Amino acid sequence: MRALMSFLLVVFGSVALAGQNPANMPSDDTLTALRSLHAAALRSDYAFGQVAHLTDNIGPRLSGSPQGAAAVEYVSAELRRLGLDVRLEEVQVPHWVRGEERAELVSYPGQAANAGQKLVVTALGASVATPPGGITGEVVAVPDFEALERLGRDRVAGRIVVFNEPFDERMAQAGYAEEAYGEAVAYRSRGPIAAARLGAVACLIRSAGGAVYRLPHTGGTDYQKDVPAIPAGALSAEDAALVERLARQGAVRMHLVLTPQTLPDAVSHNVIGDLKGSEHPEQVVIVSGHLDSWDLGTGAIDDAGGVAVAMEVAHLIRGLGLRPKRTIRVIAWAAEEPGLLGARAYARRHASEIPNHAGAMETDLGVAHPVGIEIGGAPSIAAVLAPVAAILQTSGAGMLRTADQAGSDIIVLGFLGVPTFAPVQDSRRYFDYHHTPADTLDKINPAELRENAAVVSVLAYALANLPEMLPHTPKPRPAWMK
Amino acid sequence: MRALMSFLLVVFGSVALAGQNPANMPSDDTLTALRSLHAAALRSDYAFGQVAHLTDNIGPRLSGSPQGAAAVEYVSAELRRLGLDVRLEEVQVPHWVRGEERAELVSYPGQAANAGQKLVVTALGASVATPPGGITGEVVAVPDFEALERLGRDRVAGRIVVFNEPFDERMAQAGYAEEAYGEAVAYRSRGPIAAARLGAVACLIRSAGGAVYRLPHTGGTDYQKDVPAIPAGALSAEDAALVERLARQGAVRMHLVLTPQTLPDAVSHNVIGDLKGSEHPEQVVIVSGHLDSWDLGTGAIDDAGGVAVAMEVAHLIRGLGLRPKRTIRVIAWAAEEPGLLGARAYARRHASEIPNHAGAMETDLGVAHPVGIEIGGAPSIAAVLAPVAAILQTSGAGMLRTADQAGSDIIVLGFLGVPTFAPVQDSRRYFDYHHTPADTLDKINPAELRENAAVVSVLAYALANLPEMLPHTPKPRPAWMK
Repeated sequence: MRALMSFLLVVFGSVALAGQNPANMPSDDTLTALRSLHAAALRSDYAFGQVAHLTDNIGPRLSGSPQGAAAVEYVSAELRRLGLDVRLEEVQVPHWVRGEERAELVSYPGQAANAGQKLVVTALGASVATPPGGITGEVVAVPDFEALERLGRDRVAGRIVVFNEPFDERMAQAGYAEEAYGEAVAYRSRGPIAAARLGAVACLIRSAGGAVYRLPHTGGTDYQKDVPAIPAGALSAEDAALVERLARQGAVRMHLVLTPQTLPDAVSHNVIGDLKGSEHPEQVVIVSGHLDSWDLGTGAIDDAGGVAVAMEVAHLIRGLGLRPKRTIRVIAWAAEEPGLLGARAYARRHASEIPNHAGAMETDLGVAHPVGIEIGGAPSIAAVLAPVAAILQTSGAGMLRTADQAGSDIIVLGFLGVPTFAPVQDSRRYFDYHHTPADTLDKINPAELRENAAVVSVLAYALANLPEMLPHTPKPRPAWMK
Repeated sequence: MRALMSFLLVVFGSVALAGQNPANMPSDDTLTALRSLHAAALRSDYAFGQVAHLTDNIGPRLSGSPQGAAAVEYVSAELRRLGLDVRLEEVQVPHWVRGEERAELVSYPGQAANAGQKLVVTALGASVATPPGGITGEVVAVPDFEALERLGRDRVAGRIVVFNEPFDERMAQAGYAEEAYGEAVAYRSRGPIAAARLGAVACLIRSAGGAVYRLPHTGGTDYQKDVPAIPAGALSAEDAALVERLARQGAVRMHLVLTPQTLPDAVSHNVIGDLKGSEHPEQVVIVSGHLDSWDLGTGAIDDAGGVAVAMEVAHLIRGLGLRPKRTIRVIAWAAEEPGLLGARAYARRHASEIPNHAGAMETDLGVAHPVGIEIGGAPSIAAVLAPVAAILQTSGAGMLRTADQAGSDIIVLGFLGVPTFAPVQDSRRYFDYHHTPADTLDKINPAELRENAAVVSVLAYALANLPEMLPHTPKPRPAWMK
């Protein structure tokens, strides 16, 4: 239904500018430039080359890691080479390092003599460690928070809690992958707190994703001041289900070793490259992705692809000799994964310039085929963008959808009022790979990556050249932004 | 085309008995029993319960392992409980034990300072070990045997060879998964010999399967007397491709640790349970699967499912109070994976009784939806089975296809002339999982498992009750059977 309304906006948008200044439309010259950009994007291999370098040559880019620093250096140099004004802005980031990780069922119903079963486990980001030799404890396996609460402290204290909440793959395949992920990720964020409140000694969640290839899925977890921080990991979907099945049959004991370390905070950087505007250099349109990744894979779809798309915008505009009226600012954000730290540092540092931000775009839900644009901002924006959407629809990306927020890092700017934008993609398979060892270069379809570059280039250039800036719509800020 | 001809056989088979005794057809009583068996199979949860116990409770069943022995004990007890005459026949099996396994690229083009990249690797079955601390060497990455030969000894000696021959997923998805696997598996079998001939110090192949979830795929490799045995492993598809991409850019060095051990041979057993025939107890119809598995997963689709289907045949026939005229023999084969060792031992031990084997069935290509039966034997058999196929077609399994051989272990009997049979399944996803950590209980669809049990039960009972035995067709024996 939302899609249908969006389609109607595409078709009728140009005659339905209620609430907008009818003069605030891309000019004919701009539309011509947009068509050139679109065509050039669909021909260019530049973005794929950037993803390949970031993933194959540099590799995983965990915040605080040497590869993270190498990536900052690489992207800065590359943006300079493209002729942008480049600067690095410091961001303090956590420096968490994965250690040994092993889990084994040491006793369980029907077990062959002395033969344990190895499980596939990985530590969640920010997890504290077990003792070096691990812990051994009885397992309490539950499907959800409510089941754990029903068991109560008596049956949880001293034990290892396993949450086997399955990822709703049918929801994901129906086109609601983010919603399915949101349900699963609640356990990753809040599971260890809920378990520790009842005295558990460790908490393992079922991997929050749709893959059934014995893949562990990492991601950040949360602790809370008044609750003990207990070791937190993710089992593969298969292993979480196995543990729950065996625990229904009788007592299950697990040996768990997770020895990550939290080192002193490190310094990373937002990489910022400006392609100066010819008329309003102080007004800024951001195109972005985040440069940090998790450490299990090489962070291709999360989010080297997004960074590469943003770099491609500059590459294409320079290559075509176009000159945007506003500044187009390429940002490779630091430390998205530990909590949008790069974006929050940017918002603090540039607080006084927020009113000059004409828009912020980010690609951070993979780079599969884009079907349109999500607009985080005033509903009236869709009508302004109708002529842009008509161009994008020639590669199947003409849907416009208005939401509260778009993107990941850029929601920080969105709360401050900046209109945010993100490609809407076919994300059915995204959560099979992201945060897992399988997030690697081969997961990127070069043709679909180009389609994303086309969406972001065309929209960025359009926003940079609209006669007027789009309306800002500040929202109540969440607690973590205050 | 083969399918179309088979379909015609199904439809017209009953009037096309060229070369067969027209009297050798299932009787009306038998057909009635077959319909009951078919219906009962589609209702029964027995087989799934057996797979669950073998995989969840016993776990991986590598030849020589305690779990392998526990599985022999479990299946024997269960078959006795079903009222079968059960005996164990000794089989000498290799006792290979996986050790530590790690691979890391320690230097490569464009690398971030001092930051290696961890690869996902697993040792191939029978592989010799590296020294405990591993080896470090330059990588030679090639797409195939020919490319390696072209490089020659000068460029291969002292190096680690990586074969990046991709699994032909399009072939697999087109319905030719076994053929695609055959192409890939040539590298697993012969790669280490080819590499060692040119002086390589280790050989890694690309995992022989269609999965792209950073999954390693194990399986047996071969050595040859006159060629040095070098450590042999499989990289995940992603890692093999990464290594080849980086090696095209410049020198790549890898540190490789594989420390499996080959212990003295162990004793395992074929588990054999007879449901004695009422008229010809000396004539035997075998229903079977293999009880051993690889050690990375729990061997659900390879091949607890096949064993469970064979057990289900006995369970259903007993449950319905049917009495076959010939003996139905349930066999859980030992040591299929290291080279059909259980079946070869059986053939030697029962050499004089081979003429009394009315047929041998095996389910060892997973237990996904069956579309029919592969017949390894005289082309005339299809016509005899047409009325059976008509019953199976009510659950979509009515296709009859004649081939040289059917099944895996039972091809040993096939060479000796015994007609062999196997369900033909939708095997498009089979090679995504088999031999990998992801071969676990959840990969089995209970409804499809029941469909397989229906095929095998119906066919076994039909073969046991045909008026005459089917013709034997001995074939030239391969070298390994002489």
